[in-house]
Amino acid sequence: VTLALFNGHPETGSWMASRGLHYGDGVFRTALVFEGRVVDLDRHIEKLVSDAGQISLSPTGAKACRGEIQALAAGHASAVAKMVLWRRSEQRGYRPSTTDTERLLLIDELRPLPAIAWQSGIEVQRSAVTLAQQPLLAGIKHLGRMEQVLASAQLRRNVTEAIQCDASGRPIGGTRSNLFWVRAGDLYTPRLSACGVAGVMRQKVLEIAQMLRIPWRIGDFEWCDFEAADEAFLTNSLIGIWPVRACDRRKWRAPGAVTRALMQKLSHPLAPA
Amino acid sequence: VTLALFNGHPETGSWMASRGLHYGDGVFRTALVFEGRVVDLDRHIEKLVSDAGQISLSPTGAKACRGEIQALAAGHASAVAKMVLWRRSEQRGYRPSTTDTERLLLIDELRPLPAIAWQSGIEVQRSAVTLAQQPLLAGIKHLGRMEQVLASAQLRRNVTEAIQCDASGRPIGGTRSNLFWVRAGDLYTPRLSACGVAGVMRQKVLEIAQMLRIPWRIGDFEWCDFEAADEAFLTNSLIGIWPVRACDRRKWRAPGAVTRALMQKLSHPLAPA
Repeated sequence: VTLALFNGHPETGSWMASRGLHYGDGVFRTALVFEGRVVDLDRHIEKLVSDAGQISLSPTGAKACRGEIQALAAGHASAVAKMVLWRRSEQRGYRPSTTDTERLLLIDELRPLPAIAWQSGIEVQRSAVTLAQQPLLAGIKHLGRMEQVLASAQLRRNVTEAIQCDASGRPIGGTRSNLFWVRAGDLYTPRLSACGVAGVMRQKVLEIAQMLRIPWRIGDFEWCDFEAADEAFLTNSLIGIWPVRACDRRKWRAPGAVTRALMQKLSHPLAPA
Repeated sequence: VTLALFNGHPETGSWMASRGLHYGDGVFRTALVFEGRVVDLDRHIEKLVSDAGQISLSPTGAKACRGEIQALAAGHASAVAKMVLWRRSEQRGYRPSTTDTERLLLIDELRPLPAIAWQSGIEVQRSAVTLAQQPLLAGIKHLGRMEQVLASAQLRRNVTEAIQCDASGRPIGGTRSNLFWVRAGDLYTPRLSACGVAGVMRQKVLEIAQMLRIPWRIGDFEWCDFEAADEAFLTNSLIGIWPVRACDRRKWRAPGAVTRALMQKLSHPLAPA
């Protein structure tokens, strides 16, 4: 028997037992809706199933998201789709007793469209908030995102995104994006085996690089490797590719030639023709 | 405008925007209710205010919890009180735009009372799930608790609690308790400056040790320091002190003399006379 007050008022909704809320015991995906369709839906569902599996959640709920989010997205010209999945609550305490999930699907209109500086690129900063190393959770987007919240709170004016490093100062990625750079024609992106989220757009960009015969490498890189880059960009599902024109004092001409080639091939719905 | 489905059904509750659910951007406390009163309520509210402050949340909501949880607890012989506080949601995305909070207060009956092995002690195990080091979040009980969930999932049969170490193998604490041990009459407990939660009962036990003139030390200790102990125990707000009689192959006579003295002085409502 549970007695509850939510902001001072009696509450009876089952959400208040959510292990997503109480423990962050779940995973989520954010996708773009364009002209009534969820972009890259198959990739997102596949990633949701895979992330769920990494914390011992059944794929059933993740798979149910596919039809539901598509139905919810119908008729929306441009929106954000969010799929949140968490372990069903059966008893008090951390110990999980089931792999069953609950799910919350959300559609929010994107009006106006996000300001995407396709031609000029965005400015980013190196975050003072480092990412703790937890190999068991690396690569997945679980519901505990305090490190990203703390980094976002420190964004300077006119700075769009913060690059977070691991405790050794190696660049890992943006708070809501994956990091790439180009050096001497080769494409680089950090390995995400100890921290960071391996986004759907990161994978897609690597596949496009493969198609375009752009050599690419995933590895453990130093901050100075990133600063020595000829071009840099960030990726996420909403934006596609964000050319980076500055990170603190380091400036680039953006977008660079390789970035531009990737953007063209990507044909993201919000990207310029 | 948000369109939402919760487990396949249309949903309109404001909870679905909770930054507690989406990002773990909040903190919580679990306290014992005994004979209609929340035990150590002042300490819990003080800790809630302090934890909230560490992630830039206003103390107003935390302070409002005091009267509300006490009113909710009235009439309950023995129960668990949970106070959950998260940042109010104003816009999409990680970036926090306010220090205002929302709060969820829960009371769950404790029937039967937790099985407390006061006389014989409990068995614990060393967890294979290590704690990532994040000094910005160390010591506080924020809503992202996946590491505790993963450790709890691996609890062996008849084992009550798992001791988690940092990545260097130093013992930090239980999934839902703080760790103490005694060696040559001195009391030891790990420093929690990079990971772990500094519980209310941990602080109380240190104060009692002070009163009893038991020398105590907070520091960075190795696993072998813990294994070399003469006595060991765990603490949390529900249980008070849990004597430890075994950790994997290491056995102790439990409770030891110092543990027993602390238990007597603590006079926790659920403790033996």
